[in-house]
Amino acid sequence: MSTKYVYTFGDGKAEGKADMKNLLGGKGANLAEMNLIGVPVPAGFTITTEVCTDYNNLGKDAVVAMIKEQVEAAVKDTEVAMNAKFDAKDGSFPLLVSVRSGARASMPGMMNTVLNLGMNDDTVKIVAEKSGNEKFAYDSYRRFIHMYGDVVMGVEAEEGHHNPFEVVLDELKAAKGYKVDTELTVEDLKNLVEGYKAVVREHAGVDFPTNPWDQLWGSVCAVFDSWNTERAILYRKMENIPSEWGTAVNVQAMVYGNMGDTSATGVCFSRDAATGEDQFNGEYLINAQGEDVVSGVRTPLEITKVGSLRWAERNGTSEEVRQAEFLSMEEAMPKLYNELNTIQQKLEDHYSDMQDMEFTIQDGKLWMLQTRNGKRTGAAMVKMAVDMLAQGMIDEKTAILRQEPNKLDELLHPVFEQSAIDAAKELSKGLPASPGAATGQIVFSAEVAEEWAAAGKKVILVRRETSPEDLKGMYAAEGILTERGGMTSHAAVVARGMGKCCISSAAGVLVTGKSMTINGVDFKEGDFISLNGTTGKVYEGKVATITPSLDGDFGKLMEVAENNTRMYVRTNADTPADAKAAREFGAKGIGLCRTEHMFFEGDKIWKMREMILAENVEGRKAALAKLLPVQREDFSGILEAMDGFGVTIRLLDPPLHEFTPNDEDSQIEMAEKLGVDVSIVKAKVESLHEFNPMLGHRGCRLGNTYPEITEMQARAIIEAACDLKAKGKDPKPEIMVPLIGTLKEFQMQEAIIRETAAAVFAEKGVEVNFLVGTMIEIPRAALTADAIAEYAEFFSFGTNDLTQMGFGYSRDDAGKFLPIYIEKGILKHDPFQVLDQEGIGQLVRMGCEKGKSTRPDIKLGICGEHGGEPSSVEFCNSVGMDYVSCSPFRVPIARLAAAQANLKQN
Amino acid sequence: MSTKYVYTFGDGKAEGKADMKNLLGGKGANLAEMNLIGVPVPAGFTITTEVCTDYNNLGKDAVVAMIKEQVEAAVKDTEVAMNAKFDAKDGSFPLLVSVRSGARASMPGMMNTVLNLGMNDDTVKIVAEKSGNEKFAYDSYRRFIHMYGDVVMGVEAEEGHHNPFEVVLDELKAAKGYKVDTELTVEDLKNLVEGYKAVVREHAGVDFPTNPWDQLWGSVCAVFDSWNTERAILYRKMENIPSEWGTAVNVQAMVYGNMGDTSATGVCFSRDAATGEDQFNGEYLINAQGEDVVSGVRTPLEITKVGSLRWAERNGTSEEVRQAEFLSMEEAMPKLYNELNTIQQKLEDHYSDMQDMEFTIQDGKLWMLQTRNGKRTGAAMVKMAVDMLAQGMIDEKTAILRQEPNKLDELLHPVFEQSAIDAAKELSKGLPASPGAATGQIVFSAEVAEEWAAAGKKVILVRRETSPEDLKGMYAAEGILTERGGMTSHAAVVARGMGKCCISSAAGVLVTGKSMTINGVDFKEGDFISLNGTTGKVYEGKVATITPSLDGDFGKLMEVAENNTRMYVRTNADTPADAKAAREFGAKGIGLCRTEHMFFEGDKIWKMREMILAENVEGRKAALAKLLPVQREDFSGILEAMDGFGVTIRLLDPPLHEFTPNDEDSQIEMAEKLGVDVSIVKAKVESLHEFNPMLGHRGCRLGNTYPEITEMQARAIIEAACDLKAKGKDPKPEIMVPLIGTLKEFQMQEAIIRETAAAVFAEKGVEVNFLVGTMIEIPRAALTADAIAEYAEFFSFGTNDLTQMGFGYSRDDAGKFLPIYIEKGILKHDPFQVLDQEGIGQLVRMGCEKGKSTRPDIKLGICGEHGGEPSSVEFCNSVGMDYVSCSPFRVPIARLAAAQANLKQN
Repeated sequence: MSTKYVYTFGDGKAEGKADMKNLLGGKGANLAEMNLIGVPVPAGFTITTEVCTDYNNLGKDAVVAMIKEQVEAAVKDTEVAMNAKFDAKDGSFPLLVSVRSGARASMPGMMNTVLNLGMNDDTVKIVAEKSGNEKFAYDSYRRFIHMYGDVVMGVEAEEGHHNPFEVVLDELKAAKGYKVDTELTVEDLKNLVEGYKAVVREHAGVDFPTNPWDQLWGSVCAVFDSWNTERAILYRKMENIPSEWGTAVNVQAMVYGNMGDTSATGVCFSRDAATGEDQFNGEYLINAQGEDVVSGVRTPLEITKVGSLRWAERNGTSEEVRQAEFLSMEEAMPKLYNELNTIQQKLEDHYSDMQDMEFTIQDGKLWMLQTRNGKRTGAAMVKMAVDMLAQGMIDEKTAILRQEPNKLDELLHPVFEQSAIDAAKELSKGLPASPGAATGQIVFSAEVAEEWAAAGKKVILVRRETSPEDLKGMYAAEGILTERGGMTSHAAVVARGMGKCCISSAAGVLVTGKSMTINGVDFKEGDFISLNGTTGKVYEGKVATITPSLDGDFGKLMEVAENNTRMYVRTNADTPADAKAAREFGAKGIGLCRTEHMFFEGDKIWKMREMILAENVEGRKAALAKLLPVQREDFSGILEAMDGFGVTIRLLDPPLHEFTPNDEDSQIEMAEKLGVDVSIVKAKVESLHEFNPMLGHRGCRLGNTYPEITEMQARAIIEAACDLKAKGKDPKPEIMVPLIGTLKEFQMQEAIIRETAAAVFAEKGVEVNFLVGTMIEIPRAALTADAIAEYAEFFSFGTNDLTQMGFGYSRDDAGKFLPIYIEKGILKHDPFQVLDQEGIGQLVRMGCEKGKSTRPDIKLGICGEHGGEPSSVEFCNSVGMDYVSCSPFRVPIARLAAAQANLKQN
Repeated sequence: MSTKYVYTFGDGKAEGKADMKNLLGGKGANLAEMNLIGVPVPAGFTITTEVCTDYNNLGKDAVVAMIKEQVEAAVKDTEVAMNAKFDAKDGSFPLLVSVRSGARASMPGMMNTVLNLGMNDDTVKIVAEKSGNEKFAYDSYRRFIHMYGDVVMGVEAEEGHHNPFEVVLDELKAAKGYKVDTELTVEDLKNLVEGYKAVVREHAGVDFPTNPWDQLWGSVCAVFDSWNTERAILYRKMENIPSEWGTAVNVQAMVYGNMGDTSATGVCFSRDAATGEDQFNGEYLINAQGEDVVSGVRTPLEITKVGSLRWAERNGTSEEVRQAEFLSMEEAMPKLYNELNTIQQKLEDHYSDMQDMEFTIQDGKLWMLQTRNGKRTGAAMVKMAVDMLAQGMIDEKTAILRQEPNKLDELLHPVFEQSAIDAAKELSKGLPASPGAATGQIVFSAEVAEEWAAAGKKVILVRRETSPEDLKGMYAAEGILTERGGMTSHAAVVARGMGKCCISSAAGVLVTGKSMTINGVDFKEGDFISLNGTTGKVYEGKVATITPSLDGDFGKLMEVAENNTRMYVRTNADTPADAKAAREFGAKGIGLCRTEHMFFEGDKIWKMREMILAENVEGRKAALAKLLPVQREDFSGILEAMDGFGVTIRLLDPPLHEFTPNDEDSQIEMAEKLGVDVSIVKAKVESLHEFNPMLGHRGCRLGNTYPEITEMQARAIIEAACDLKAKGKDPKPEIMVPLIGTLKEFQMQEAIIRETAAAVFAEKGVEVNFLVGTMIEIPRAALTADAIAEYAEFFSFGTNDLTQMGFGYSRDDAGKFLPIYIEKGILKHDPFQVLDQEGIGQLVRMGCEKGKSTRPDIKLGICGEHGGEPSSVEFCNSVGMDYVSCSPFRVPIARLAAAQANLKQN
């Protein structure tokens, strides 16, 4: 244990440095580092984390005695650096300081900051005089008493009462008839100071300490005490932060930008946060406090001249007026501007990232108050990384790890024009089921959607919920809005697959037939609405959209990701068009081709219904024989679109009742079309009814009860592949048996598939390589994956169903409690969006490990919705999957996430 | 390797003994053992299993040479013992033998037996002469040629043709116009012998071997060859039998009971297989073959005089007639009877179990052909074990392990009178959902069931499926028949809980409104039907039932089980009546008290519906306040009935829509009763609709979205317990939170329960001990059981839901594919009946192990339907559970199974 307890910084010097985070905490080490690289930050000092440990072991008095001398020396150094005097009774400028905690790891549950420490009845007068701003001086003083009383002295509202400081303030305002705090006069503020002091006396039982040294020790000990509050202990427990780490205390001089016309304050960015352009920019105000810049009371000015000229052009401001009223800092304070410009470059170089900085000029002297990596749009994120990589500022690993994969979405979907959305009226908020923006006329049925779209109208399909029958209407629509359903409802999954905007479970929306109310307001067919699928917000009327284009930076970034990845990315696609789109986004194969959607196209549904109505194997085989050629054509198109890459085709999965109509009119139509009595259709529909279709007669349970369906599908796939191969193509079908729960289920399906393939090969005289594998989507399949892998050549984890069954949540019904669960903190995320690594992840890991235990070279992938979610992709990498598969528009995100996972885990 | 290849037995001597099973095979060792204990069995010898191994390694010729001398010596010994001559050309009685395989483990896929070996054109004449029965002699001869040709010479039907021996027989019968084989004359049989010989010549390419020695070697080698047939290899693979074990060959003299009036044959039992009475009994026929006794062509006679007298009384036969025509063996052959009686006692003593024996008397000499442990009824099973235990024949462990727990069911439910059921017409067969027999008039609604039952009628409630609204009707009915649903459907679970007979998913049954058809035949309200819930069979009309009484033997057996168990047994009971019934059956507490059923009693449903219709917390609380006193009363009754034992009460579990009506009339009634517009009721019903209610808004998801429900239930439980304690009782409530998937869900519910309890204790000034725990029924709960057990004081495994979610099978829908899965061998058992140890068992084991890892003294139990299924109970014991819980009528079965598990696993 060192005997140096206090580390000073200021004036371009520092006793600490960046790598002393354990001793000085994150904030303290950074303040030291900024000094060392020559950035002017207000001087101060850091009391080490080791002192905190001593404080807990030895107690307050012993520790204060131990560090007193070093603290006093550090205050003296700070006085010198800032040319100010702590406890300034002699008329020199008072040194006011802030006191903040600063642990090794960020701990939001810790002590609040104390500002303006050092104020008392003497110093307030000097500040008033020196600043020429008495109101500012007394306002700072009364705020300090409130803050110190609250944070250090524990003055707080008693149960059932208001905060006593606020009571005093409110009483004064009421007596004077004020509405807002800014109406307070200097006299009022002076009265408040006295009133606050009385509050402290009454509630804390002692006087407010007017001696700055008492104030300082009070604050320092309060920081150490805050390390062991209940909420801090709880937070550490949750985040696994050891109690013995302790916190440091940072004491730093305050500076003010509102001390006259040689003072100013501002925020600036080393590059353009919206576009990514490498152009310094920002805003400032002369004689102002930081909050003036952001509050909008005064219009802040541009920092650079180029920014100011652009601003004037945008606002139609003449150069004359600009020069008179809106001069940039570059023009108004050229020397200070140059200093700031040098610093921003230095900081960006030092942190190798775009910086978001706050500064204050006090009496002609520039101080940097804060610098941090700046927030940015998706486009800016990509451009900055690619630029910095080209500029040699960062390496590929940094460029990749710095991306927020979900932000790529902004580059891949239409968005609303900012001005248009600012003016739009928000009607409702639902789940952001599929990203993008859409605007159009309301229609309530898939048929109308198709008709109107064919007539050139833009439509929004509004449904209570969607079903496979709505597919063509969804294709035709710009966006989809549903009253019900979660993030993995039919509407959501299909919309994401199509790259179409969708909002589900929209609050207050009630759909009945051909009308809708949103929170009681009626909407009818033809009315315009707009959807933001990225935020889940529904707007009234038309809102203008823009479609971002994928420029060169995006391509370059994807290339860098490709160089740094282990897993590859496939797509979930059911059509050649989707397959092509995904391939353009870099998909290397199809991880999930659902065959059921094909049955809804054109008149295939009628052949399917004929099969369902058949009374025996012969009848089913006759109907299936009609489906064979059209299925073969479907598969041929997809295999050709993904030529050379693996295409995982899932055999028929949904329960048969999804193919039969529920309303009477459609049942009558079905009966007429298939030439049977309607009672037969009704009886069949009724016999197919299930209480819990998710757990019912579907997946391989169909193939194992009606083997002829599997046979037809296997034949269609293999025939398509053979025909393509004969034409010189390289088809790679991977036939996937869905919903396997036991090894025998798989074996029986595999036997049918292999026998069928052998027959086709013999007929065609052509052979193709193919794999037979299974979804792991039933918990029992994960539990017995070792046995299943003895026969299955690949596993694709169906984490949607695994989540449904592992949690016991129906994705179609969970909308009733999931939002409440997330709100109450029972769940951190919707487990259908973010894979639950703690629970469901165990099943996935088990499935991978057990699978490899009996078949070391088994091909492992994921095709659930989680395949495009970054943290889930990272998990997939950690359990050794070969690929992830996601909807076409998530492919770039998944590619980036896969590269990040690889870089993090290697 | 020994050089002794052949072990003889006969005449009270044997070279082998019981513990030489590895060398002699099971059959050979037993034949030796029977000789050694003085039981007269036909003499013979065993060729060892080691010879089989030599045969496979060295080949046929080498082995025949190796063992020839020893075999010939053994044949000689057999000739002496049987006073007969193999290859009897000299006129002495021919020694005919059987040749059978006999491995260490039973192998049903092995070689068929060859009988009557030694028959040829010479010996057949001697047999004809000595037996005085030429037809028997030639019939035996032609059967031998057929059998030998088939088994040894490989003469079989060619593809698309009939068996050639049968062709010859059929042609002869056709030519003569015979319908049955017994019409064959001696001349016909002689012709058949020649015809069969020609078949052998034609198909095998060689003559039928007439030399008995050739016949013997052919048969011995055929046994060895059969060890390596495809089906034998496959069977060994499946059963893990090592190939090097080999099979022994048993050669044994044939004896005949049809050689005149000093010959006889019969079957006998050392105790009464129906009642268990310790009374030797059986049937025999003079001058007959074994098949005559069992075929029913001749009426067999009683063996004992007491049996004969009882028979005569039952049939109204006069003593005169009895003595003339139906004399018992005891009277007709007193000396042989005494010998047989001594032997049966000796065999029962030796095997310590009731023996089922076959014997033959050839020419005044008694031979025992077979003895095995006899099959018995449930009542006999219990009585025999208790008697033998009292007689000191067996110890407690044997008495317990010998029970088949499921057979106890016969003692616990009404059964049909045998004569009545023989005469009844079977209409359909469904799932045996709840055991017992019932007869009554058909009703189609719960209301009518109640009305008619109140009027003294016995009714059978017939429904498409049942719902909680049918509860009172189910109580009123004798039995329940449903068109749909599986073994754990609502009807099945509730009926088993009530101990009421139930058949579900009955084949061919269609229920529509107030009528039903069974395979096209109409049945209407008031028609009589009868149900056997033990077999699943439905009968037309009334069938008389009898109710067995639990006698002293049953009680004694339960006492013995109690002395030998580790786990105890609780019951699933929702009413004080069920709790009392279960306690009488030996339940030590309640493992699952479902609170939802309570809400359907009386007018509680209306308070529940009021709660559901409430629009906000205040409205719900107001309705819940009305439910509180009635819930408290419910809990008080149950806690009192189980005074001193733990009572696990599950908080509200089903989705709220189970409490609201679906049909319009009931919705109108609900609206009127609750004073709201029917549109409000309809909207609520619609908003509560779920696609997959099993995975929906239920269980603790209700309590976590409407905490006031949990609060009311916790208050009702704790208040009831406090009141009972104040009255000097010892209530032990264990509050169970259902459907936990995450720790936080549990913590939030636990907090409400503990806060409520503290409040009640303070109000009442009384404290009671109580536990708070959870169901483990969601896969994720099992996976994260270590975290949950840090807070939960007990786990109760809900293996119904764990099976539903682990397999992805809805118990209400699985009826569509489970029967097919079981038929196709995809599943060995219905996993809702027999716990799937391979898959779901992993989750249970994981839950137990993880739970104990963080809370070593956690109380573990099971409350799924599996808690009453013997193999599942055994599994529960193996994973260290403290108790199993099952419906009241399964309690004795579970107690027995628990004791068996303990005895097997210790």
